[in-house]
Amino acid sequence: MTAADYDFTISRLGDPEVASPIHLSKRFDDFQANYVTDDQLVLYDVEGDNSQLESIRSRGILEKAGPRELIFYRPESLHAAILTAGGLCPGLNDVIRAVVMTLWYRYGVRRISGLRYGYHGLLAASEVPPIELRPDVVRDIHRTGGTILGSSRGGGDRTEQMVDQLEAMGVNALFAIGGDGTQKGAVALCREIERRHLSISVVGIPKTIDNDLSFVERSFGFETAVSEAVHAVAAAHIEARDAINGIGLVKVMGRESGFIAAHTVLAQNDVNFVLVPEVPFELEGSNGLLAHLERRLHARKHALVLAAEGAGQELMARSSAEKDASGNLRLGDIGQFLKQNISRYFQAKGEAINLKYIDPSYIIRAAPAVPSDAIYCARLGANAVHAALSGRTRCLVGLVNNRYVHVPMDLAVGKRRGVDPEGPLWRDVVEATGQPPLMCN
Amino acid sequence: MTAADYDFTISRLGDPEVASPIHLSKRFDDFQANYVTDDQLVLYDVEGDNSQLESIRSRGILEKAGPRELIFYRPESLHAAILTAGGLCPGLNDVIRAVVMTLWYRYGVRRISGLRYGYHGLLAASEVPPIELRPDVVRDIHRTGGTILGSSRGGGDRTEQMVDQLEAMGVNALFAIGGDGTQKGAVALCREIERRHLSISVVGIPKTIDNDLSFVERSFGFETAVSEAVHAVAAAHIEARDAINGIGLVKVMGRESGFIAAHTVLAQNDVNFVLVPEVPFELEGSNGLLAHLERRLHARKHALVLAAEGAGQELMARSSAEKDASGNLRLGDIGQFLKQNISRYFQAKGEAINLKYIDPSYIIRAAPAVPSDAIYCARLGANAVHAALSGRTRCLVGLVNNRYVHVPMDLAVGKRRGVDPEGPLWRDVVEATGQPPLMCN
Amino acid sequence: MTAADYDFTISRLGDPEVASPIHLSKRFDDFQANYVTDDQLVLYDVEGDNSQLESIRSRGILEKAGPRELIFYRPESLHAAILTAGGLCPGLNDVIRAVVMTLWYRYGVRRISGLRYGYHGLLAASEVPPIELRPDVVRDIHRTGGTILGSSRGGGDRTEQMVDQLEAMGVNALFAIGGDGTQKGAVALCREIERRHLSISVVGIPKTIDNDLSFVERSFGFETAVSEAVHAVAAAHIEARDAINGIGLVKVMGRESGFIAAHTVLAQNDVNFVLVPEVPFELEGSNGLLAHLERRLHARKHALVLAAEGAGQELMARSSAEKDASGNLRLGDIGQFLKQNISRYFQAKGEAINLKYIDPSYIIRAAPAVPSDAIYCARLGANAVHAALSGRTRCLVGLVNNRYVHVPMDLAVGKRRGVDPEGPLWRDVVEATGQPPLMCN
Amino acid sequence: MTAADYDFTISRLGDPEVASPIHLSKRFDDFQANYVTDDQLVLYDVEGDNSQLESIRSRGILEKAGPRELIFYRPESLHAAILTAGGLCPGLNDVIRAVVMTLWYRYGVRRISGLRYGYHGLLAASEVPPIELRPDVVRDIHRTGGTILGSSRGGGDRTEQMVDQLEAMGVNALFAIGGDGTQKGAVALCREIERRHLSISVVGIPKTIDNDLSFVERSFGFETAVSEAVHAVAAAHIEARDAINGIGLVKVMGRESGFIAAHTVLAQNDVNFVLVPEVPFELEGSNGLLAHLERRLHARKHALVLAAEGAGQELMARSSAEKDASGNLRLGDIGQFLKQNISRYFQAKGEAINLKYIDPSYIIRAAPAVPSDAIYCARLGANAVHAALSGRTRCLVGLVNNRYVHVPMDLAVGKRRGVDPEGPLWRDVVEATGQPPLMCN
Repeated sequence: MTAADYDFTISRLGDPEVASPIHLSKRFDDFQANYVTDDQLVLYDVEGDNSQLESIRSRGILEKAGPRELIFYRPESLHAAILTAGGLCPGLNDVIRAVVMTLWYRYGVRRISGLRYGYHGLLAASEVPPIELRPDVVRDIHRTGGTILGSSRGGGDRTEQMVDQLEAMGVNALFAIGGDGTQKGAVALCREIERRHLSISVVGIPKTIDNDLSFVERSFGFETAVSEAVHAVAAAHIEARDAINGIGLVKVMGRESGFIAAHTVLAQNDVNFVLVPEVPFELEGSNGLLAHLERRLHARKHALVLAAEGAGQELMARSSAEKDASGNLRLGDIGQFLKQNISRYFQAKGEAINLKYIDPSYIIRAAPAVPSDAIYCARLGANAVHAALSGRTRCLVGLVNNRYVHVPMDLAVGKRRGVDPEGPLWRDVVEATGQPPLMCN
Repeated sequence: MTAADYDFTISRLGDPEVASPIHLSKRFDDFQANYVTDDQLVLYDVEGDNSQLESIRSRGILEKAGPRELIFYRPESLHAAILTAGGLCPGLNDVIRAVVMTLWYRYGVRRISGLRYGYHGLLAASEVPPIELRPDVVRDIHRTGGTILGSSRGGGDRTEQMVDQLEAMGVNALFAIGGDGTQKGAVALCREIERRHLSISVVGIPKTIDNDLSFVERSFGFETAVSEAVHAVAAAHIEARDAINGIGLVKVMGRESGFIAAHTVLAQNDVNFVLVPEVPFELEGSNGLLAHLERRLHARKHALVLAAEGAGQELMARSSAEKDASGNLRLGDIGQFLKQNISRYFQAKGEAINLKYIDPSYIIRAAPAVPSDAIYCARLGANAVHAALSGRTRCLVGLVNNRYVHVPMDLAVGKRRGVDPEGPLWRDVVEATGQPPLMCN
Repeated sequence: MTAADYDFTISRLGDPEVASPIHLSKRFDDFQANYVTDDQLVLYDVEGDNSQLESIRSRGILEKAGPRELIFYRPESLHAAILTAGGLCPGLNDVIRAVVMTLWYRYGVRRISGLRYGYHGLLAASEVPPIELRPDVVRDIHRTGGTILGSSRGGGDRTEQMVDQLEAMGVNALFAIGGDGTQKGAVALCREIERRHLSISVVGIPKTIDNDLSFVERSFGFETAVSEAVHAVAAAHIEARDAINGIGLVKVMGRESGFIAAHTVLAQNDVNFVLVPEVPFELEGSNGLLAHLERRLHARKHALVLAAEGAGQELMARSSAEKDASGNLRLGDIGQFLKQNISRYFQAKGEAINLKYIDPSYIIRAAPAVPSDAIYCARLGANAVHAALSGRTRCLVGLVNNRYVHVPMDLAVGKRRGVDPEGPLWRDVVEATGQPPLMCN
Repeated sequence: MTAADYDFTISRLGDPEVASPIHLSKRFDDFQANYVTDDQLVLYDVEGDNSQLESIRSRGILEKAGPRELIFYRPESLHAAILTAGGLCPGLNDVIRAVVMTLWYRYGVRRISGLRYGYHGLLAASEVPPIELRPDVVRDIHRTGGTILGSSRGGGDRTEQMVDQLEAMGVNALFAIGGDGTQKGAVALCREIERRHLSISVVGIPKTIDNDLSFVERSFGFETAVSEAVHAVAAAHIEARDAINGIGLVKVMGRESGFIAAHTVLAQNDVNFVLVPEVPFELEGSNGLLAHLERRLHARKHALVLAAEGAGQELMARSSAEKDASGNLRLGDIGQFLKQNISRYFQAKGEAINLKYIDPSYIIRAAPAVPSDAIYCARLGANAVHAALSGRTRCLVGLVNNRYVHVPMDLAVGKRRGVDPEGPLWRDVVEATGQPPLMCN
């Protein structure tokens, strides 16, 4: 499937006929911000050779996000709900805050319910009743990490029960902050809402600390995650450098993509070997990781290895089968796997090493957003509100070529983005480490 | 002038005929990074309505940056020089480090001279001789702010003398890290180099902490600057909030553009009035800043004002004329100007206020780069080296639609970018402050 | 007056006869914390030669702070009030939090009033009514700087009116968090309370960011202040180092003592000249600051000067008299004074310098407490509550020889502590800068 | 053994007869720092009831540290050596820097050898030759964590070989930065040096991140360690709070003492259960940790447990014996032990919990020193040099009652300090958590 095949059409609940309470300008050169009109578009794919650029327009045009002059809902009768689902990610509170502040101050919406613990808050609303969200409740929440709504996984498949609850509560706009699973649940909700002919807008704000969502060129919380990962890798570097035959080993998040690992390498500069899910590698053999690690250690006396958690899964599948009896190896834990294999390798050679392993994952997830993420969250949240108020539904707010755009939920769901092993990011990463282009024999 | 009129052609010293010592892949699907070919292009303008997008290709196509398979120089005979000029900016050392590391490790270049104090290092080379740059010299320089080369302003107009010196030293690639003035000097150098038919490549890495360079969608050091500004604004907020009739006033950098101020507002959330060079405002009258400030103070007991240093220059021209006699007012210092006018306004009304003024400029400029800037600097520096080695000259490395590209120096020079008062950034900023769209009567 | 003359007796409202609701142990070796008994004492002066140590016991014994087995008030009938007065200081919210949490959870006190804006909250209680403080109100306040109660200066002399208000509110324990002025006001309150034979305990928690209070070997917020000052001085160093003839000049807090400046020198290591109120210096002459600065500049091309705000006041008195006409000089602003004099000195010599002046004061005051200060505040607040509940009054909680003790308010008031120019701290500071022992001709 | 039994006499190599090159004042009131004289003493024990204070002088008097007027060595013929041994600790580079700077600039010593990897650098000097230390080598080393000399464990028992090497190198002053093991090795060195009648001074700078050294009331790096631990505990709190039945579990350093854990509790305020080596606890039973944890979870839906690594070792001894067969449990790992037991407990009850375990140890050890530690390191290092130059040997530089003092090495070695379960620190910690005074049935 190429970009030409994408359907970027955004669903709408109906024609917007309400004048927006946000007073923006309709003319230019008056030093005042303007409404976004529906014909403001952004190209998706902007790269190629001369002939490809000729037809580039056919390769995807997205709708620009922002406040419209006419909106679909009367703000005074709107009941909005917000939920956060999945694992923690820096910036969740910033997004919640932005959604509430924009609803309240810009549109005058006065009923905003914070659902507790993701979809659980719809399924067990009597047990964990929603929080009434107002500006004074959210004013300072962005100063700490986590989410004031709580979060949990799962539940997104009990669609009917959830729409029942939305109807019972009288919610007509739902903001779903979460990752792939959450957005899949949201698509299912939309289908059921359409089936029942309800006017409930569902707008997603995509969350993936791994930065691996398509059509969202940078996920919120990502820069914070890299900042925290850098902190851990810097510590591992020092532990390695200051010991005899010191080896630092760090595992960072990245189940299906190595973006955090790749960016951490470029920010930190001390990593010698970086392992990501997108690029295969082997442990053994003269072009395997262990041999390269040994050469590095002999040459420089210390080494630093950084692994994304999804790296080398194939290797482990094999290994773990071998090791089932002892049960020492948790399937898929690349950190423990590398720790054990590196130790065994050098022990067999009779070389004493000092291996220090750091797994900073939870510290990363719970950090408060750094300023650049805080800004991004503030703008994602505001644009999600503009989308819902305009009657758009079944869409995400994304960032494409640095512009905030609407992305159809169905398109974004299930399609992951990874580090391109042939592209410039990975090229610069490999250059920064000095590791071989490919550690396969 | 519209985008259609831009000439994005990049100058070259000649045909590259040397095989690159960087071993990259030439085929795809081998999990190894590839060379960039000269026909890999990036669209400049990607936004518009349907009819505009039809012809968007004509509105600018840029060359993608990156390592080429064939290069122009033999690395073993290359003598590269680096200089940093103008005011300090976070990330300078990161860029120097990346240029040196890429030259040394990727291309095998062994003669790299660090010119001292900007163009001064060419003009007074005997007084301030260049530093010989090697990996061990630059390894840890990115951990602190500033520039190990030192920096100074001016000198860029003594073109002939500088080219004499480049010839005397045998430099054939010059990396000029600096702002508008520096790049203008670099263009003049290029003209003189062409006049003399020399094979000296001059590649610029654009530096402007204000983020106001065209064709560079984000200048290095900018996110660090915002992070530090947030710190100062947070302090001013607390000082204002915790005093009776407290007013916090902060001046941040931004001579011709309000990007730092605008982003700080979005990251910090507590600013009530933000003033930038791009949007006029008045002090007096019922729609002037002072009246709005008074209303805010009556309603909430405290207020926070953030001004970019270039804001309100017209007001001061008038005022300073009036005040020349007493000499109290330094022309153009918007911070002192506002401090005095706010104090006088409330004193005249007999209202006691607690005004706390913070000017954090130098703290901002000297900060070490935050990780996202560190990454950006590392990649700018590497791509600048790739550009020079390929024989390109009279060009900058820029970022357009998130892609690293080559930008003709002549095009970038003298063309500033500002916050668009009618665009989405300023819209979101005004929404975040709650200030009136325009404070003019 | 020597330590032998101090009267360390603590005032008490009466005999404590109520069993403490805090269940602590009364025997040892049961791994449980014990009550503090009234005969647990701490020596004040612990230093001297052999003969001095013979009689050292007579040189001051203080009472140890902590929870007593018998207390004076019935917690259920206690109405406590808290106020914060004077300039902001890191840790204020931490202290408020600790007082409230200890009252509520340890003693079961349920009426806690937060007076607004220092003594103003007693004088204008109808205008700025107190905040009802409960655990949920204070739970997270320590995450930001400032004080949730607000602060203001003055008012402490309107004693009768304030005691009227305490009576009207039924307050019987007042916690006064503030500096010298605040504690003087508290002593006056105590006298009036005694005159009226009221059972109102007044316990002070001494606040002085300058660290200059006697009998309190470290004031809360001080380590945070130094951390922030280090940040500013590091920036000034970089600005100076990276410019031609760069001079960095930083002013930090310290009206009567140079503790912040002295500690910043030791933490930062780059300061060449530090000026404090306790040590005189001259500008002119061959042993004056300016000549030394010039020599340093010639030798090393850059220099860094750090001044406590109270330094060199005598010099300015003279200068400002000379300059009254032009009005350029704000009396006593050592930062501006040095900036002007350094500029003039080098201008007269025809030497171009690059002087960068930083005044980070408000950023320092408003910072949230670093962990070591947070811990200190938590313990000061808890011990203040223990003191008040035991019926003690007219006393402060202090730290002497690393032990928390009770200090009579009358003794602490008006007696400032300074950096001893003949002592080990200043010795180590002068060594760290390399400056001459005394810059006087 | 009570304080009365301590022998605080400091060993000396001989009478100092050399005039110090440090020019300090010998009179008072001249605003210049003075030499320390040998009769300046500091009381060790300063606490007790009235009768105890009568005789307190007999309970320990220590010698004050600092520069003497007469010194033992001629600086121009001194060869000093420095080593760092044991685990990493924040501030190592700060101490190295201070020792080198004081030797070089204050005393004019020009031969300073940095031994590599602790005692290994003496035992294998040909393999890992010493680094020549000069001001330009150490100028900026305090900006990063770790130690430029490298560190390793062990080797301290090969005394004769090491003294041979000291003699071969001509070292006559050795600075040993390390913990208990390192100082024991240093005592052995001193004995051998005495046996050979050599004039080699050995001065220790005690390092123990756990803060458990007697006669050193605060170990360097400790405040940095607490700052980093606070970061990890804050993350665990957020992970726990924002999940359904979330339990955060953090393990921090503290093999034999709970100081880091105790201080972290007071700084962070969110810990519900803290476990330290000094206070026994049980897992099972109605007063055991698990039952209390369950009650907390039912009441508040989330809980936070902080364990020092040495806590609960007795429990594990039993458990690990039971579990040897499966081999899942690494002996003594309280973090894994608690994780498994908590999981099992709630699983048995059929309650779903969300347990997040964080072990931040290596991140803590490798951090650069916070300013208060940086200051402390600077002063420890300077005072160690003063001690060695005066001819003192077999002693440490310590801090007692906030004064820098000399402590006999033999006294300090092997005597650990712990959190007193009956004292005020633990009392305040237990109050802050709200946990039961003792979790034993």
